[in-house]
Amino acid sequence: MAYSIVPLSRLIEQFESLPGIGHKTAQRLALHILHLPRESANAFANAITEAHEKIKYCSVCCNLTDREVCSVCADATRDRSIICVVEDPRDVFALERTREFNAAYHVLHGCLSPMDGVGPEHLKIRELVERMKSGEVKEVIMATNPTAEGETTAMYISRLLKPLGVSVTRLAYGIPVGGDLEYADEITLKRAIEGRSEM
Amino acid sequence: MAYSIVPLSRLIEQFESLPGIGHKTAQRLALHILHLPRESANAFANAITEAHEKIKYCSVCCNLTDREVCSVCADATRDRSIICVVEDPRDVFALERTREFNAAYHVLHGCLSPMDGVGPEHLKIRELVERMKSGEVKEVIMATNPTAEGETTAMYISRLLKPLGVSVTRLAYGIPVGGDLEYADEITLKRAIEGRSEM
Repeated sequence: MAYSIVPLSRLIEQFESLPGIGHKTAQRLALHILHLPRESANAFANAITEAHEKIKYCSVCCNLTDREVCSVCADATRDRSIICVVEDPRDVFALERTREFNAAYHVLHGCLSPMDGVGPEHLKIRELVERMKSGEVKEVIMATNPTAEGETTAMYISRLLKPLGVSVTRLAYGIPVGGDLEYADEITLKRAIEGRSEM
Repeated sequence: MAYSIVPLSRLIEQFESLPGIGHKTAQRLALHILHLPRESANAFANAITEAHEKIKYCSVCCNLTDREVCSVCADATRDRSIICVVEDPRDVFALERTREFNAAYHVLHGCLSPMDGVGPEHLKIRELVERMKSGEVKEVIMATNPTAEGETTAMYISRLLKPLGVSVTRLAYGIPVGGDLEYADEITLKRAIEGRSEM
């Protein structure tokens, strides 16, 4: 570009480095920041450094937390005999929104993906196996994503855990509530038929 | 939500406050920040505070700059007898990308919009009128957006400047290059016909 304003270009570049943000959006966001009151801009900057400094992995379930043990693991009313294994902290948010789930979690922080060079040693699988040692855990629900990688990860972990005498289950496949049967793909429909239940 | 991690929620809220960013995207961006190396996260935070501290309005054209006078206004090779009036600093970026335009700019920072309570006193119109006093300016090109508000703003300013003996022009309307005639709206086509030129 013929002309540029260094601090502005730098801010635009930072926004552009975020996933899903293109150059035009980055420009718009950077200009929005410039139009904020000084305190709001500082609050934004502080939120970034503070979140980055304070948030770490829960020593039990590897979810994100600002304490040693996350609020779910610290909650005595939770059923610790059931562990729900998810790929991402966002999946915990999603499951918590059901308000029906009262078990513990384990966050893998990814899924097995040989194409991207992600092997078992890159995920929190060792920590999950470690949790079985207390003998408290009766069931592990595999709630990895219904993708090829998620399936592989679920399969891999189930083979590790079954010899330890733990029951390993998988979330049900089927048609999403509120969805349209017409638009459901063949594999989902096939799984929905296989998993049908008495009314 | 049943559970939350304070520093993370705060960061998600900050992202959510940006224009066009919803809750899910804000979550994704915040988690992306957490996965950055410490230095990158700090660089992001610094880019925000630095841009906010250093960038101000150019004392001549009111565009954004980190100096007293912006690089366009400081450029001696620019033709200062022509001023191109735009609504937003992004419009200057767009015009500079043509690499054909060698005049000066004036950034209004908005357009007249009585519905949103934006009157002439909220725009950099007084500063524009002030620039006419040198007698150096021969032409003012109104390059506000081709919207109702942009038109009104152009009309308002042209009425202010014409009595000062300055020629006021407007960007040409017509079909966009590379566009499809079939999809052009009626008003654009009408303007394209009105503005036709000898081949």
